[in-house]
Amino acid sequence: MNHRHLLLMSSSRKDQLGYLEHAHAQIHALLQHRQQQVVFIPYAAVSFDYERYEDMVRPVFEQLGYGFSSLHRHADPQAALQQADAIAVGGGNTFALLKRLQDAGLMSVIQDRVRQGAPYIGWSAGGNVAGPTIRTTNDMPIVQPASLRGLGLLPFQVNPHFTPGKPPGHNGESREERLAEFLALNAPEELVALPEGSALLVEGDQVQVLGERGALHFRPRGEVLTLHEGKRFALSRIQGPADMAGWPDFLPPN
Amino acid sequence: MNHRHLLLMSSSRKDQLGYLEHAHAQIHALLQHRQQQVVFIPYAAVSFDYERYEDMVRPVFEQLGYGFSSLHRHADPQAALQQADAIAVGGGNTFALLKRLQDAGLMSVIQDRVRQGAPYIGWSAGGNVAGPTIRTTNDMPIVQPASLRGLGLLPFQVNPHFTPGKPPGHNGESREERLAEFLALNAPEELVALPEGSALLVEGDQVQVLGERGALHFRPRGEVLTLHEGKRFALSRIQGPADMAGWPDFLPPN
Repeated sequence: MNHRHLLLMSSSRKDQLGYLEHAHAQIHALLQHRQQQVVFIPYAAVSFDYERYEDMVRPVFEQLGYGFSSLHRHADPQAALQQADAIAVGGGNTFALLKRLQDAGLMSVIQDRVRQGAPYIGWSAGGNVAGPTIRTTNDMPIVQPASLRGLGLLPFQVNPHFTPGKPPGHNGESREERLAEFLALNAPEELVALPEGSALLVEGDQVQVLGERGALHFRPRGEVLTLHEGKRFALSRIQGPADMAGWPDFLPPN
Repeated sequence: MNHRHLLLMSSSRKDQLGYLEHAHAQIHALLQHRQQQVVFIPYAAVSFDYERYEDMVRPVFEQLGYGFSSLHRHADPQAALQQADAIAVGGGNTFALLKRLQDAGLMSVIQDRVRQGAPYIGWSAGGNVAGPTIRTTNDMPIVQPASLRGLGLLPFQVNPHFTPGKPPGHNGESREERLAEFLALNAPEELVALPEGSALLVEGDQVQVLGERGALHFRPRGEVLTLHEGKRFALSRIQGPADMAGWPDFLPPN
């Protein structure tokens, strides 16, 4: 997948800024101000409907100068994605998003389109689902997908909404403890955690860290490396799952 | 399952108290001071080993006057559970716990033993896995179980470690928002959330709320009812999944 153009964002919001307000330069960095039609996938929305989600996201892309349509408006979602210049996948619940993509037979359509060079933008759940699996989502498994296998657009796991520590008076796990559990059971895998406002821009086999808070590279045995804003590295620098052969594949479209 | 005796606890710790220190009276309420052998299942442990987990839990049960052994010490885990007077399942990662129980062929062994009248104690992940599914776990899906289907010892979902609100500066979902997403996608299901220190004591078809913080009964459309300490109600009062027929079953033991 040498032609991949990906923008994987931690979150739709940073601090007190408006929806995707922090992300304007990041989106332009991927879409390069070129005139193009972005098709938005609202499937991660659970406690609000697709119309409301469309109303939140449309103005952002239109004000940045890009064409926009939401997938739920298209009679043939597969054809809409095949014809999309760029694909944007919003946040919400990662399990619901993955199950809906699987059930609609869209996983391989998105993979094909990205392989052909279409830019992919995902934030939060939409960033997580781009990885080899959704094993590093923060979301509650409110529905059961056929498999936890993701789009596999990049070879390692990303953890969005990274927040250190835990709230006072809470004895559940901190995020660092959860990620340490992932690393313990999946060695020698590594992952990249993104604080809110940060993103990875992937062009071919090269990654660049965007956002003033940078990113964290979690390695086995508790090693955590800071990846500062602007840092560039090869995709192969982060160890992903060595072998996906044992993973259940997507259900075929119904 | 009229003979069920269950103690489902939110957490191993409450505030600054020691391991299970808040739970002594709750454990006695289930085990009734009778001389009996408790077999402990340490499979939710991920970032520490089973020996260390055994060392944390053994003193608690022995000081309360109960016999104790950890399942990882038994050459034949299925036989050990079949002969256990009571079964205790500790917290950790719910996905790892469920996968290990499935892989070892222990799901039906535990179900049978509880059906025969053996008391079951579960805290955190061990309480969550007792429900119809683990769809209300707070844990990261670091491994993929064959199915999210749980032990089904009680007919509705429990959410452990309930903490309201969200940490300052974090734009991810609050626990209430996550549970609202569950309710939205799974209507008309309901669930019970347990603040740390709280528990449900289930005797046959009757439930009693233990712990000074009580519990919360989440219903569709945002309704949340407080269940105070000492409150008793029928299991059938909380709506669980109406039909588990469409759910993938456990993998048979290898």
